[in-house]
Amino acid sequence: MRKTGIAATILAGIAGGLVLVSAAVARDDPLPSWNDGAARQAIVSFVTAVTEEGGPDFVAPADRIATFDNDGTLWSEQPMYVQLAFALDRVRAMAPDHPEWTDTEPFKSVLDGDIEGLAASGKKGLLEIIAATHAGMSTDDFAKIVEGWIATAKNAETGRLDTQMIYKPMRELIDYLKANDFKVFIVSGGGVSFMRPWTEETYGIPPENVVGSSIKLKYDATSGSPKILRLPEIDFVDDGPGKPVGIQKFIGKRPIAAFGNSDGDYQMLQWTATGPGRRLGMIVHHDDAAREFAYDRQSHFGKLDKALDDASKYGWTVISMKADWMQIFPAP
Amino acid sequence: MRKTGIAATILAGIAGGLVLVSAAVARDDPLPSWNDGAARQAIVSFVTAVTEEGGPDFVAPADRIATFDNDGTLWSEQPMYVQLAFALDRVRAMAPDHPEWTDTEPFKSVLDGDIEGLAASGKKGLLEIIAATHAGMSTDDFAKIVEGWIATAKNAETGRLDTQMIYKPMRELIDYLKANDFKVFIVSGGGVSFMRPWTEETYGIPPENVVGSSIKLKYDATSGSPKILRLPEIDFVDDGPGKPVGIQKFIGKRPIAAFGNSDGDYQMLQWTATGPGRRLGMIVHHDDAAREFAYDRQSHFGKLDKALDDASKYGWTVISMKADWMQIFPAP
Repeated sequence: MRKTGIAATILAGIAGGLVLVSAAVARDDPLPSWNDGAARQAIVSFVTAVTEEGGPDFVAPADRIATFDNDGTLWSEQPMYVQLAFALDRVRAMAPDHPEWTDTEPFKSVLDGDIEGLAASGKKGLLEIIAATHAGMSTDDFAKIVEGWIATAKNAETGRLDTQMIYKPMRELIDYLKANDFKVFIVSGGGVSFMRPWTEETYGIPPENVVGSSIKLKYDATSGSPKILRLPEIDFVDDGPGKPVGIQKFIGKRPIAAFGNSDGDYQMLQWTATGPGRRLGMIVHHDDAAREFAYDRQSHFGKLDKALDDASKYGWTVISMKADWMQIFPAP
Repeated sequence: MRKTGIAATILAGIAGGLVLVSAAVARDDPLPSWNDGAARQAIVSFVTAVTEEGGPDFVAPADRIATFDNDGTLWSEQPMYVQLAFALDRVRAMAPDHPEWTDTEPFKSVLDGDIEGLAASGKKGLLEIIAATHAGMSTDDFAKIVEGWIATAKNAETGRLDTQMIYKPMRELIDYLKANDFKVFIVSGGGVSFMRPWTEETYGIPPENVVGSSIKLKYDATSGSPKILRLPEIDFVDDGPGKPVGIQKFIGKRPIAAFGNSDGDYQMLQWTATGPGRRLGMIVHHDDAAREFAYDRQSHFGKLDKALDDASKYGWTVISMKADWMQIFPAP
């Protein structure tokens, strides 16, 4: 009895230890939402290689630059870009002060909920909406408007908060890269001033690490306390070939890892992949209609066509949301 | 004897301890090149206040943004801006491929060493020199040209390497701020692509933390390996009212500390000083003809006039190089 008692205690102790060990392993997995497959393996293999001191692929921490697209790569861009939803909401909120909008395009279409009419106004119409909703105030005031809006903004199809429709596996990837001394940047076609108020809290990426499209700014110290005014004029479009340019302007180093999901990321992926040494390029493929949205070559938002065709040519790993991601969104 | 021996040992031990303690204090002084005066006290008092958790002036690390001008604030800008010396050297180096320059202004004046003739060509002439020397190549090629040049470039008056004509007290200040979890940026009127190749080694400030003036860039993947081309067109002038704009564009947060030396830093200092909470603004005053250069209101480079007049109005501390700095340059 006594011996059995001891043996049982020892066995229980070993079992307890195993439970602890296995819990520790689970706790230490930096990518718990990634299924074991080619995508996960590409990430771990790359990070292991470039961080191995003395190894053939070692990259000094100062050169470990990683860039992420935002819309469709870090959060959902369907049924429309979040920033477009913001702009349309702003038109509706500002309409009482603009009675002329009820019969002036493109505002009329927005107020009538006529998306086809809005689409018909084209790029010119979109620029007018941006000028009306994104310019004409100080940078501080615009940041407050964005903060107020994003706090309650919800996806039109799922009803979830937009900031809760971020991809948990990508958030884990950001943290994994940061834990391995990568400098992580967002490089998005979206407006830099629209993103900066919430990227730190949402992704752990601070404002100074956000690159995006912008309108012109003007310093104004003519009256009262100085402010920076937002002007109704496009300054920089950080999309397509603009992405490598934005990377050079704002970061000044070529990334060794880049993550995108659409043809707007093609040149960023290409610029990253064709540099010397070990590189990682990945494309988030939206193929999970059940858990998120399924779209690629025909989509109005986040069209993925040419980059999908050329993925193997450049060694870009295509991430299947359906197959590679155990979980898509964080728990509510 | 024995007691005396013990007492002596104890005394020796205490004395030794004092030596050790005093050595430790000296070693731990983060600002050893700063004399004890108002400037040093302003720095230490500010940093102590904003890093004191629970204190009335506490600032979270994410918001501890500090911006430094470069020319005349971190390194010497006399007898001319280092980047201007670079441009003139490039004209001379490129001249054999441009026989037409021998009778075309502003190149003729540069090749003849006629600084007055160059000055007479004005802003238009300067832009032509920038276009000829700073554009028409890839970003990688330009970085290599700068790296090669800066490795041996010397100050025309002292004969010291330009990278050795940095101000040791300011380098200590950068390190002191970084050690206190500040994010430190250069915000210079100089060209961002001219600075980035050497700021990390020279100041401990990585390329992505350098904000400056720029020319337009273009991504080119039309032949061979992709590159980014430098175009002969000004994109952004990061000087005067351009500095708060550059800060907003590239950093996206208002600094709580700013350091400059000329009227070109006025708006950066103003934008920093007039924000809420505890702020630090400092002006390096070049008043030490014996150890560096003495100039302010009348200088062609780094003119300091209006900012000096308004220093007390905004609470900017004027640093006297002569009185506040024990040592100006690092030991050779």
